[in-house]
Amino acid sequence: MKVLIVHAHPEPQSFTAALRDQAVQTFEAQGHQVQVSDLYAMNWNPVASAEDFSARENPEYLVYALEQRLGVKSGSIAADIQQELDKLLWADLVVFNFPIFWFSTPAILKGWFDRVLVSGVCYGGKRFYDQGGLVGKKALVTVTLGGREHMFGEGAIHGPLEDLLRPLLRGTLAYVGFEVLEPFVAWHVPYISEDARKAFLHSYQQRLEHLSDDLPLTFPRLSQFDEALYPLA
Amino acid sequence: MKVLIVHAHPEPQSFTAALRDQAVQTFEAQGHQVQVSDLYAMNWNPVASAEDFSARENPEYLVYALEQRLGVKSGSIAADIQQELDKLLWADLVVFNFPIFWFSTPAILKGWFDRVLVSGVCYGGKRFYDQGGLVGKKALVTVTLGGREHMFGEGAIHGPLEDLLRPLLRGTLAYVGFEVLEPFVAWHVPYISEDARKAFLHSYQQRLEHLSDDLPLTFPRLSQFDEALYPLA
Repeated sequence: MKVLIVHAHPEPQSFTAALRDQAVQTFEAQGHQVQVSDLYAMNWNPVASAEDFSARENPEYLVYALEQRLGVKSGSIAADIQQELDKLLWADLVVFNFPIFWFSTPAILKGWFDRVLVSGVCYGGKRFYDQGGLVGKKALVTVTLGGREHMFGEGAIHGPLEDLLRPLLRGTLAYVGFEVLEPFVAWHVPYISEDARKAFLHSYQQRLEHLSDDLPLTFPRLSQFDEALYPLA
Repeated sequence: MKVLIVHAHPEPQSFTAALRDQAVQTFEAQGHQVQVSDLYAMNWNPVASAEDFSARENPEYLVYALEQRLGVKSGSIAADIQQELDKLLWADLVVFNFPIFWFSTPAILKGWFDRVLVSGVCYGGKRFYDQGGLVGKKALVTVTLGGREHMFGEGAIHGPLEDLLRPLLRGTLAYVGFEVLEPFVAWHVPYISEDARKAFLHSYQQRLEHLSDDLPLTFPRLSQFDEALYPLA
């Protein structure tokens, strides 16, 4: 299996980085090939802009998705985007490894999605959800959190974590066709003991060793909707 | 009233920019004071990192929220963050004006939240939701979308838009204490006629002229939870 780990944490010694290293080790011990995109170390530019195209279909007015679609065909898309897109298309499994910032991804990772999930390759027209451009690939979201587990879930103060991660799990990853696995969550990370951290690393290793047994989460299928995307009765 | 408009769109002539201009005009005609943070025009840096602090409490290991809390007191926080924080604290109403990218904010705006909603000022400890640091201020989210209105809502292919915007509306804005108003949504924007766009601008103007009549959305209150944040029976 070919695995891409997209890692985003501003502190190189963070527990989030330890989870990344655990994943690299575990996958390599199983004989898988691994590439890591460490967005902070790469000084990744997260801002989708006109500068992403060396030539434009319409130099007067930027429609970003349209220029992506044409730029990736003509080779005028920025080299840093093309490099990440190549890794994405190479991978069978992509692990997104990050700390929750404002119940969402850090901006540097949000900008990876904004720039790399190129229209015409990853989605476009009726190619989304189970018809998305990345069908056949799996995605795993691995997050660290400051909050405690009892603060999340039905009736809890912040509600279910799956609801908070919905723009990512469903709106982004399932949208482009990934089989999305249940997220791995390390709770209360800034406040826990070394032993509790080791326990998270150990359970992460066990999860990764048996990842092929995981059933993906369930999302809409285009066959449930008509041509105009109204739900079928 | 003092109004801050935080605007994020890569195309200066976009319809999203027309909504920004409509808001400036409408508020000024009502005698309100308006400031605009145009994040693309400002070349805003969205990446939360160690470089945001000229001096650090702990130079060996970055805990971003902790350094924010101390940096804003000692004056060692980056000047661009302090400038945005000053505008935020000045404002009675903040309008976030952007196109939906991946069912969420463009990365450049996500990084405004990551960097400007400083721990110790906007939230911290038990100061969140109705006890948040920005209690007394209102927030309005104004978005443009490619999708059609029937693609959103219960049973629709993408589900309710409020669910997709939940990390922003509840997890970010309500979390720091804002009264969050119902979002203003312009649907299907890249594909509609000039007349349809004018109709959106007109209904936006009418909404803004009567904004003080709006009831805020409902979110959790800390009084519904015990000291450890378990829900009270």
